[in-house]
Amino acid sequence: MAGTNSERRMIAEGPAIILVEPQLGENIGMVARAMANFGLAELRLVNPRDGWPSDKARSAAAKADHVIDGTQVFDTLEEAIADLNFVYATTARQRDGFKPVRSPVTAAETLRSRFRTGERTGILFGREKSGLTNEDVALADEIVTFPVNPAFASLNIAQAVLLMSYEWMKSGMDDVTATPFQEVEQAPATKDELIGFFEHIEEALDARGYFHPINKKPKMIDNLRAVLSRRAFTSPELSVMRGVISSLDRFQRRRPHPEAAQAGEGREPGHDDD
Amino acid sequence: MAGTNSERRMIAEGPAIILVEPQLGENIGMVARAMANFGLAELRLVNPRDGWPSDKARSAAAKADHVIDGTQVFDTLEEAIADLNFVYATTARQRDGFKPVRSPVTAAETLRSRFRTGERTGILFGREKSGLTNEDVALADEIVTFPVNPAFASLNIAQAVLLMSYEWMKSGMDDVTATPFQEVEQAPATKDELIGFFEHIEEALDARGYFHPINKKPKMIDNLRAVLSRRAFTSPELSVMRGVISSLDRFQRRRPHPEAAQAGEGREPGHDDD
Repeated sequence: MAGTNSERRMIAEGPAIILVEPQLGENIGMVARAMANFGLAELRLVNPRDGWPSDKARSAAAKADHVIDGTQVFDTLEEAIADLNFVYATTARQRDGFKPVRSPVTAAETLRSRFRTGERTGILFGREKSGLTNEDVALADEIVTFPVNPAFASLNIAQAVLLMSYEWMKSGMDDVTATPFQEVEQAPATKDELIGFFEHIEEALDARGYFHPINKKPKMIDNLRAVLSRRAFTSPELSVMRGVISSLDRFQRRRPHPEAAQAGEGREPGHDDD
Repeated sequence: MAGTNSERRMIAEGPAIILVEPQLGENIGMVARAMANFGLAELRLVNPRDGWPSDKARSAAAKADHVIDGTQVFDTLEEAIADLNFVYATTARQRDGFKPVRSPVTAAETLRSRFRTGERTGILFGREKSGLTNEDVALADEIVTFPVNPAFASLNIAQAVLLMSYEWMKSGMDDVTATPFQEVEQAPATKDELIGFFEHIEEALDARGYFHPINKKPKMIDNLRAVLSRRAFTSPELSVMRGVISSLDRFQRRRPHPEAAQAGEGREPGHDDD
């Protein structure tokens, strides 16, 4: 099931990620990796402290080379956003001012709808220690902030980029409950298959005197069927279960395990039902 | 506005995060930090390669000491989940088998509803290099997987924990578009305030001969009002704008800036309207 072409599609589109005066190459690399994980590719750096290119960044990017290779460096934030139509600033603290404040979900939806109409967009992330200045924030259209633990609110830069990238990816999904792969079978078995299973196990138990005393047999069958049908078995699951019953039914134990024999002591068949 | 008690509330509840045979202390520390960011506190380690406690983990946890101090270590995964009622396994690849596969959003909602009914829950995360084995996954109730770029799907362990912790936090919010703080003012100004602003600026312009030729004045006013009302100004914003107009209107330029004077060359007031 794995390895179809569509599963390997490289996604590389969407808002630019703009890091303002990042300090550590490792952080820039982790940002690149997080972007690649969720299909973003355009990284811009404003005045990175340790220069560019950066071996540490490339190493931390864990093969997100397409992001690292395409990274652009600017002297000022004004230059870094010059060609963009709409920009978010990420910040963990309230600013005085008139900017609308959005959740990551709302911001991602806004970025997605602007992307679909052809606008060029970006998201600003601040310095490791001090975040964005008020002057940086003033250049953005709106603010985005994360719903964090109030007593432990500090996200590192790669984490913040990861969360926005993840919400960006989700904003492009028709259904956020969809998954890239699914379980092998989802539909419950037919009732015919289920009743066949009931009859199989009941016959094997009956042959062993499980339904004892016999006047309780209807109630015991009710209980057993309730237990076995609470979870809706699929067809392949019923095949597995029927194999188990057949094995227990037809074959004698060959090498009794000492522990298992001990654990079974004192257990009587047919008395766990009422 | 900042610094109220409610803003500093420490959240520490919810599913246990269980790392199976983690290798690097740094990763364990970043996991602890991610948990603390989104209000989780219970970290369990199965057979960590470099032992426990770990100075590297504490350092990377960036002061999430309550998580590090409470971390429990187990020899086996079976022991680590023994007291739990419901467990998710995180995996990036499809497994043969019968486990339901959920998105992070669905998984977080499921964990939240089980938490509210008093169940104890957990989320399994695999080894840095190889993830969870099929045997590990078999011990979980359901699988959770992330919507990633198909060609760049590998999340590191701290990133995966961060995303699940973030979705956990969101699952407890009544409204995922809510933000921990809001802009200072959101309501648009009244029309009375807005019209007062229009009249202010129009009077100042009229006094300068802006509305030229005079027969175009009604159309020019229409255009100007359209520009000024497209974005709904708030009351404080109108105060700022009226201050700007008053300053331009009442005070002569004191120290003409050479560049500004040059940039203004060739611009005639009153001719940018049609």
